[in-house]
Amino acid sequence: MSRILTGIQSSGRPHLGNILGAIKPAIDLSKQPGNESFLFIADLHSLTTIKDGPQRQEFTKAVAATWLAFGLDTEKNTFWRQSRVSEHTELCWYLDCFTPMPMLNNATSFKEKSDKYANVNAGLFVYPVLQAADILLYDAEIIPVGKDQRQHIEMTRDIAGAFNREYNDDVFVLPEARIDERLMTIPGLDGQKMSKSYNNYIDIFLPENDLWKVIKKVKSDSTPMEEPKNPDVDITFQLYSLLASDGQVAAMRANYEGGNYGYGMAKKALYELIVDKFSAERERFNHYYHENPGALEDELRKGEEKARAIAGQTIRRVREKLGFN
Amino acid sequence: MSRILTGIQSSGRPHLGNILGAIKPAIDLSKQPGNESFLFIADLHSLTTIKDGPQRQEFTKAVAATWLAFGLDTEKNTFWRQSRVSEHTELCWYLDCFTPMPMLNNATSFKEKSDKYANVNAGLFVYPVLQAADILLYDAEIIPVGKDQRQHIEMTRDIAGAFNREYNDDVFVLPEARIDERLMTIPGLDGQKMSKSYNNYIDIFLPENDLWKVIKKVKSDSTPMEEPKNPDVDITFQLYSLLASDGQVAAMRANYEGGNYGYGMAKKALYELIVDKFSAERERFNHYYHENPGALEDELRKGEEKARAIAGQTIRRVREKLGFN
Repeated sequence: MSRILTGIQSSGRPHLGNILGAIKPAIDLSKQPGNESFLFIADLHSLTTIKDGPQRQEFTKAVAATWLAFGLDTEKNTFWRQSRVSEHTELCWYLDCFTPMPMLNNATSFKEKSDKYANVNAGLFVYPVLQAADILLYDAEIIPVGKDQRQHIEMTRDIAGAFNREYNDDVFVLPEARIDERLMTIPGLDGQKMSKSYNNYIDIFLPENDLWKVIKKVKSDSTPMEEPKNPDVDITFQLYSLLASDGQVAAMRANYEGGNYGYGMAKKALYELIVDKFSAERERFNHYYHENPGALEDELRKGEEKARAIAGQTIRRVREKLGFN
Repeated sequence: MSRILTGIQSSGRPHLGNILGAIKPAIDLSKQPGNESFLFIADLHSLTTIKDGPQRQEFTKAVAATWLAFGLDTEKNTFWRQSRVSEHTELCWYLDCFTPMPMLNNATSFKEKSDKYANVNAGLFVYPVLQAADILLYDAEIIPVGKDQRQHIEMTRDIAGAFNREYNDDVFVLPEARIDERLMTIPGLDGQKMSKSYNNYIDIFLPENDLWKVIKKVKSDSTPMEEPKNPDVDITFQLYSLLASDGQVAAMRANYEGGNYGYGMAKKALYELIVDKFSAERERFNHYYHENPGALEDELRKGEEKARAIAGQTIRRVREKLGFN
């Protein structure tokens, strides 16, 4: 039984790139019989960059609805908002006192951010410590991360190790990073990596008309309709291939290579495929997001209770060592 | 009605210098009709320097017993352990995200500490933010501080101001520092300022025999017993004057100047004055510290409930703005 922990950014409504590249793989992992996943919406971290309250609530709701729409099993796993479990910030302070300043000064993520932002706040500086608290509170064993996050898991291990050594006891479980080398990159409307910051993303939960307007914007070349086309350099075809069955992909390839098949037709096929393939997810998203936000809230509260029970145990263990009990 | 807040260090058992220089003045202030005092044992701050759990518990207990022994009214005022109110660390994280890094880098307290300690931890760096949280949680209006702490109150005002401006609302009360220019300095056994770090302090709660052994160590010159002595340069006389009535001081001065009065006799008189003057306090300390620690715990728990009720209101107000409700 492996305990897997993932923090979910809540800095925007998830798009197709997030779904295929992160959400579906994480849900697949959570479904494996030996695994128990802890998935939290990192809304405390979002405060380092987003100050607007209604915007944060909106993003959090959309993120939660997306994970539920894609079938996360909230009975088997634990799914909660970080800000609802006060042990995260409590443990963060304790760990601050075991974190050498040079470690934080050397964090690559901080160096990058402090170049970018004119006015860097202390939250950005200490956020690796909050991240360590997120992980250590739940005795997480495996943290699936991209390569850029490997340093943070090392920092978590170092802080936990310093604490365990100070009290000569295994208070914290040392987590392992699981680096996914073959992370899928999903092309956006313009062929660059799909990303909110490039404004080239596909929001699959849009109403059908709006979704079709977005799909029409996928970039294509100017080959006339009658001529054969090379599917392997076309973005619409790449997106279609990520979602379609092998048979559908072969048929689409034949359409491209046969000529008399325009990009507009391919885009229409991509649009229809999205609507068809994600019809259940679109319906569930609507349910949780628009029609019945109370059901969403119920799911999150259930997760909070489960998370609090475990976090509470860890905090008691830590406070015992610190002389706070 | 002024709301006054004071954080009480818990880095050791309070000595005569702490009692005369800080504890009694704070209790006197709390007794003034217009005032309501919030006095908390800053055990979360102590973690920046003290890692040993049993030691922290021991210090916390001794500090609490001292304040109760000196007659702090826990009905009128609020007296609690910081570590028991999780809103302190929660608000600390929120404020981290509104605290510019340069402000913390420029904190004099951090510069001094980072010179002294080989291995500075992040807790020492962000502790002015925790201090801001301590103050702002309780809408404190007046913070009595020494001159060296003036900068920290300025930082608290700056952080609170940034938050209030961001949400265009008076979420936080901006506190005022009250600098006490004529802070009493109590001489230690060797004439330097009485301080734990100089190991020149008088612990008035010691058993009588041990207390007498300590008082005998007060430094004096080698004037023979028969000769007159100058009371104004003698440490025993200075200590005696701080505690005695005007009549007693005049009589003692006459003893010194008359001759045939040895330092040993003056020390004995000082010892007897301490035992006599603080007999009720010594008894109450014994009660809370040795005989009935349950009564001490009850007092602190009562304070925690009062503190939590107010801190909870502030946190709800803050979370509302941040989009966490």
